[in-house]
Amino acid sequence: MSDHQPLRHDGCESPDGGRSMLRDLRERFGAVEPPNVSENETLRLQLHHRSVRRFLPEQIDDGALDLILMAAQAASHSSNLQAWSVVVVRDEGRRRRISEAIGGMRFIQEASVLLVWVADLVRAERLLERQGQDMETVRYLEGALVPFVDIGIAAQSALLAAESLGLGGVFIGAVRNDPVSIVDELELPRLTFPVLGMALGVPDPDEAAGVKPRLSPSAVVHRERYSTDAVSDGVDEYESRLAGYYENYGVRDYSWARRIADRLGPRAGLKGRHRLREWLMQQGFPGE
Amino acid sequence: MSDHQPLRHDGCESPDGGRSMLRDLRERFGAVEPPNVSENETLRLQLHHRSVRRFLPEQIDDGALDLILMAAQAASHSSNLQAWSVVVVRDEGRRRRISEAIGGMRFIQEASVLLVWVADLVRAERLLERQGQDMETVRYLEGALVPFVDIGIAAQSALLAAESLGLGGVFIGAVRNDPVSIVDELELPRLTFPVLGMALGVPDPDEAAGVKPRLSPSAVVHRERYSTDAVSDGVDEYESRLAGYYENYGVRDYSWARRIADRLGPRAGLKGRHRLREWLMQQGFPGE
Repeated sequence: MSDHQPLRHDGCESPDGGRSMLRDLRERFGAVEPPNVSENETLRLQLHHRSVRRFLPEQIDDGALDLILMAAQAASHSSNLQAWSVVVVRDEGRRRRISEAIGGMRFIQEASVLLVWVADLVRAERLLERQGQDMETVRYLEGALVPFVDIGIAAQSALLAAESLGLGGVFIGAVRNDPVSIVDELELPRLTFPVLGMALGVPDPDEAAGVKPRLSPSAVVHRERYSTDAVSDGVDEYESRLAGYYENYGVRDYSWARRIADRLGPRAGLKGRHRLREWLMQQGFPGE
Repeated sequence: MSDHQPLRHDGCESPDGGRSMLRDLRERFGAVEPPNVSENETLRLQLHHRSVRRFLPEQIDDGALDLILMAAQAASHSSNLQAWSVVVVRDEGRRRRISEAIGGMRFIQEASVLLVWVADLVRAERLLERQGQDMETVRYLEGALVPFVDIGIAAQSALLAAESLGLGGVFIGAVRNDPVSIVDELELPRLTFPVLGMALGVPDPDEAAGVKPRLSPSAVVHRERYSTDAVSDGVDEYESRLAGYYENYGVRDYSWARRIADRLGPRAGLKGRHRLREWLMQQGFPGE
């Protein structure tokens, strides 16, 4: 594994070796007051997060990967169901085939490892069979959705654990562009479904990417009840802040609104995922 | 806010003030070799995680909560869509009514704050309207599911941020037991849906709960392809390890298999959530 340390690649260090949290907050959210809270390593890491899509050739060793995945298991699970599995893919041929099936992302091959997070009710069904019971609940959409939320929780835990070790990575929702290919490639049985991928590796410090701006908290955080007035708050300000970020990396005239429109407007923006319901049914999740 | 420090309530400290990671790994997973990885605060926090359901009366101040929610926003979002919102509920009457609607959990009222994480495509629809475009994609199940995964990612980030500040909390999937009541209480408009709740507060150190055992990693982590053989690995060992954990807290004859059967066997185990698809449709997510 690399000896890269988290938060150290930008030459801006706080007294204990990490980067200033306030600087990250301001790059992320624009003008914010210094928070009246003691910093800690975890918060700094979280606020400094960026998706890594360029990797050095160094590998993540199995001991580190095991610990990263144990951090994921240690996170909360809905009703302690533990209804997910993860497939660790290192084989280059398999990663190339998966990448080609779902959109040709180079980072899937360049990363040290591809993780595929799989909704998994196989174990539960076997436990019920042993007790002579049918798994009625899997007929319903909730049966498929519980693992989706739990996989978000687990996968985020894994990514942050990796980041705490100086590694980096990126989520790959595009595994849902062609789950049939993933099912074939990973030999996923009935009652499993590939929900989310993740490429992990040693970050290339030359990747042109930083702390990506987000909407102002005032547009996202509601108090006591939902405020429809807040929804459009700060959208124009965010457009210009995000465009400025991309311009720093050589991308001109970036528009978040246009990006949203491309992604959520026409059905083609789903890149095949409009068939998700059909695919879930094929894997044994009727989704009633 | 409390001056409770994370990992300090059990009298077992590692040289830098945190609890030994190896001890938590062994309580979590049974026999494991010491990991060949340098510990850090984030990993220790993650591996020490437990859900907190009993709280002291002290409050989380707004500055800490703001930072916790900024940590959630800083995490990854699918295609940077930022398709979720969070409603911060402090009002006691509102929390009591929500708790009564979804199952009467005392911790919702005793916590300092209830967060409700909401799938939210309102902003996206407005952005598309401004560009004269329809949001075709929202017809499809994927449109509803992307926020579910992203909310798992964000909510886990918030919980860990809270834990890093010595706070604690618990996820509340039960908001999906009666989303109609939540929609009414929080005035949630069309194109929003309450996916997940979270109670946060200052942990009561007297709560009888520790590091909850999980399945052995060998039953959850697959290499290169899914192994149906691994699925039943360690289930019996886990049954006995988990029963031992509960016995420490005065619960006799706990059975994970029976719990799974109760939760996933009969439709009643879903506690109303078999209607999820219908409720999503009511909120404008047809789920095709």
